[in-house]
Amino acid sequence: MTPNTYKEIHLINRPEGTPTNEDFAFVDKEIPSLETDELLLKTLYLSVDPYMRGRMKDVKSYIAPYQLNEAITGGVLAEVIDSKSDRFQKGDIVTANLAWAEYNTAKADAVQKVDPAIAPITTRLGILGLTGLTAYFGLLDIGQPKEGETVVVSGAAGAVGSVVGQIAKLKGARAVGIAGSDEKVDYLINELGFDAAVNYKKDSFNEDLKDALPDGVDVYFDNVGGPVSDAVIWELNNKARVVLCGTISSYNTPGEDIGPRIQWKFITTSSMMKGFTLGDYAHDFKTGSVDLAKWLQEGKLKYDETIIEGFEKTPEAFFGLFEGTNLGKQLVKVADSEIAKL
Amino acid sequence: MTPNTYKEIHLINRPEGTPTNEDFAFVDKEIPSLETDELLLKTLYLSVDPYMRGRMKDVKSYIAPYQLNEAITGGVLAEVIDSKSDRFQKGDIVTANLAWAEYNTAKADAVQKVDPAIAPITTRLGILGLTGLTAYFGLLDIGQPKEGETVVVSGAAGAVGSVVGQIAKLKGARAVGIAGSDEKVDYLINELGFDAAVNYKKDSFNEDLKDALPDGVDVYFDNVGGPVSDAVIWELNNKARVVLCGTISSYNTPGEDIGPRIQWKFITTSSMMKGFTLGDYAHDFKTGSVDLAKWLQEGKLKYDETIIEGFEKTPEAFFGLFEGTNLGKQLVKVADSEIAKL
Repeated sequence: MTPNTYKEIHLINRPEGTPTNEDFAFVDKEIPSLETDELLLKTLYLSVDPYMRGRMKDVKSYIAPYQLNEAITGGVLAEVIDSKSDRFQKGDIVTANLAWAEYNTAKADAVQKVDPAIAPITTRLGILGLTGLTAYFGLLDIGQPKEGETVVVSGAAGAVGSVVGQIAKLKGARAVGIAGSDEKVDYLINELGFDAAVNYKKDSFNEDLKDALPDGVDVYFDNVGGPVSDAVIWELNNKARVVLCGTISSYNTPGEDIGPRIQWKFITTSSMMKGFTLGDYAHDFKTGSVDLAKWLQEGKLKYDETIIEGFEKTPEAFFGLFEGTNLGKQLVKVADSEIAKL
Repeated sequence: MTPNTYKEIHLINRPEGTPTNEDFAFVDKEIPSLETDELLLKTLYLSVDPYMRGRMKDVKSYIAPYQLNEAITGGVLAEVIDSKSDRFQKGDIVTANLAWAEYNTAKADAVQKVDPAIAPITTRLGILGLTGLTAYFGLLDIGQPKEGETVVVSGAAGAVGSVVGQIAKLKGARAVGIAGSDEKVDYLINELGFDAAVNYKKDSFNEDLKDALPDGVDVYFDNVGGPVSDAVIWELNNKARVVLCGTISSYNTPGEDIGPRIQWKFITTSSMMKGFTLGDYAHDFKTGSVDLAKWLQEGKLKYDETIIEGFEKTPEAFFGLFEGTNLGKQLVKVADSEIAKL
């Protein structure tokens, strides 16, 4: 039964370093009445993502900063509880960019229907959603791995990284992962089929990395930045491609992120690096989605999800991204579906 | 008249910071007798280039380091004084990669004939040689400036930079130069037709740069690296292209070159940077040479040369590159031609 009120999470401080509970507030909201074409949506799962940390800063970027005392928004998987649109019925599962909230209203054309028959619905927030597409386009369009080449991915046990390594393998490349624990290293090699993996928290990281790269680096898919990336860049082969997806190591660092200048290495190896955000590929999402779904159905892609239960644990799930507590996609389970009974 | 002996410059120390006279020795050599297919060449001009500083370090790079107690080599323009090849006659002017020496011997197939009728012969060491081709391929293949875009070039009054800005103008872009003196700024704007230019040695450099870039930066052709490049990168537009040609600001810096990490800027603007060395384009030199010669003959490209007279001043000419004493191409005039009388 739908209550009259629900909770929504607002950003109330711009975190200086590592975000804390003090930066968020759970605000009571009333369920509004629907207007024409609107849907009432009950949140089933929501996605917490590293890029959201960037939006908490008040700086110009590819995407507008979150406003103070307003809801944080992100990927949400929801059930239609009430509909004033011909295109949606109660019980439909949809995904959209919505508030971190127990309920949302949205215009029908702002949400996408999810077919629960294709794959578990949570994949639409992960490997079959923006996460999978990020790996797909970054690796294939910018990285362009060729058979026999070496692809290194940092944040390899995370949502994007784990897909990158597997697509690299599908393309006949050698996949080398960098992650933050021996358990993750083991997971990458033995569960996901990476050819090698290295724990960057070990003192022997630099030597371990070199040992894992007897033929150097042809493609580096970078989710983390910082000293890990400095070390990988040092190993670039001629005409290497560096795909810049994220710099999670620095998101919580106040002040300037300082390190060795890398231009000389790129000159002497004729290498390239390119940043991207998924919006660059919006015209081509269909192609990527079809390929990812096919590979998933053929058993060629595996994925993991780390699911925290309870809307009140959303900040905690978010904080965990920066501690690397997640394996694969980090989700918050907010509620069970009440109509579709998924 | 050809003497029996000549001088050749050897590298005798690997410079730690700024090179000095102590790092070089003038060594007496005997003119050898020629073998079949060999030429005896009298050096008329030789080219000193920033990239040579890199070869003085004992590090693996795209090109082998100079060996200690052996001759430094580079671009030389010479007259054929004696020939055991059917393809060359005494008095022919040739260019090749040869020792910093008053005389050289070379196999006929290691040199290229220079036609003095096309342009002054010194252009073959500059705008019609590797220098011009470096500007041409770096800007057009990597930078790909479009009409109305803003192209920034550092080291703009140097041999490569001055050509980059002019080709940018030919392609309908706005050319903004960065150089190290007000005289050079004036030269770029009033002699070469740059739209704006900024003196990086002024305290107001950062503000001056911003003022010169009302529409941001679409292409940055980088010859210098270091803090100048940090400042330009901060101004990149969406989908900007950074062409990495050199990092002259750091060539004489011992130890690590440290600065702000730039990955985040490239992510948020979906920008690209790529290093190159001219060898990447060896298959296409003809196209570039034809275009450059055509533009030069049509008066669409201007060039300057800074010529120091006297072989003994070669190290001094080389040192000057790092102090920015040159306008355009820095050459050393070693001798007059004795047969062709150019």
